[in-house]
Amino acid sequence: MNLTASRPTTPCLIELPQAVDARGILTSIESGLDIPFDAKRVFFISNVSRDRGNHAHRYTTQLLVSVAGSFTVDVSTGGAMTSYAMNDRRHALYLPPMTWLRLYDFSRDAICLALADTTYAEASYVRDWNDFVREAASKTS
Amino acid sequence: MNLTASRPTTPCLIELPQAVDARGILTSIESGLDIPFDAKRVFFISNVSRDRGNHAHRYTTQLLVSVAGSFTVDVSTGGAMTSYAMNDRRHALYLPPMTWLRLYDFSRDAICLALADTTYAEASYVRDWNDFVREAASKTS
Repeated sequence: MNLTASRPTTPCLIELPQAVDARGILTSIESGLDIPFDAKRVFFISNVSRDRGNHAHRYTTQLLVSVAGSFTVDVSTGGAMTSYAMNDRRHALYLPPMTWLRLYDFSRDAICLALADTTYAEASYVRDWNDFVREAASKTS
Repeated sequence: MNLTASRPTTPCLIELPQAVDARGILTSIESGLDIPFDAKRVFFISNVSRDRGNHAHRYTTQLLVSVAGSFTVDVSTGGAMTSYAMNDRRHALYLPPMTWLRLYDFSRDAICLALADTTYAEASYVRDWNDFVREAASKTS
């Protein structure tokens, strides 16, 4: 998928390229080719024992990948919630700004990799669902 | 470690920040704070059954992290080889351009995450050890 020309405006799955040979599997995410941003923050979540997320980012675009194990992500842009089963490292979940997300059902070995187009900024978070719905509605009205 | 002011010129380990709480562990890598570049290419290697690497990059800086399992990385900037046991996700290996690397001894569950400051370019690779030693020597002479 070439994303240089346009940024998806709604959450979507992106298929990542894989190089598979006798040495193993290399899965890559390239700026300007697979995603329309350079990653200013990369983080990974492991040893998860409870739900995570339960917030939205006002300004940040993220890409989530299950690099090991499996987990589920519920996302909403203000209306209905959509669930994504993250159990295939080739399928990354692209999340534009103002996407509410909840991550849960992590398998014991699950590792969630995230790439973000901004550095960490607490002011970017919306942590209350009702605030989020209000802000999302005001953006689309 | 604040790397905004200076870029390391030799391979080194960087300690990554971790947020540990009842929900699990979040390990982060932030541009301008933990590493002095935005990631234009992020890739991860899994299901490894043979040595990998055996090349250097002429222009690319990389950061390697063991997000699961363990592996070993041998690096050289033209002289002696140094070995790094990658078995702790908090300790990332920073590799400036013109670092020869060989990755081996992957555990079954090992996943190597890599962040690079350039997109993929075959012309950036030095794949022959003797060529590498020659190029490295000409840079330092």
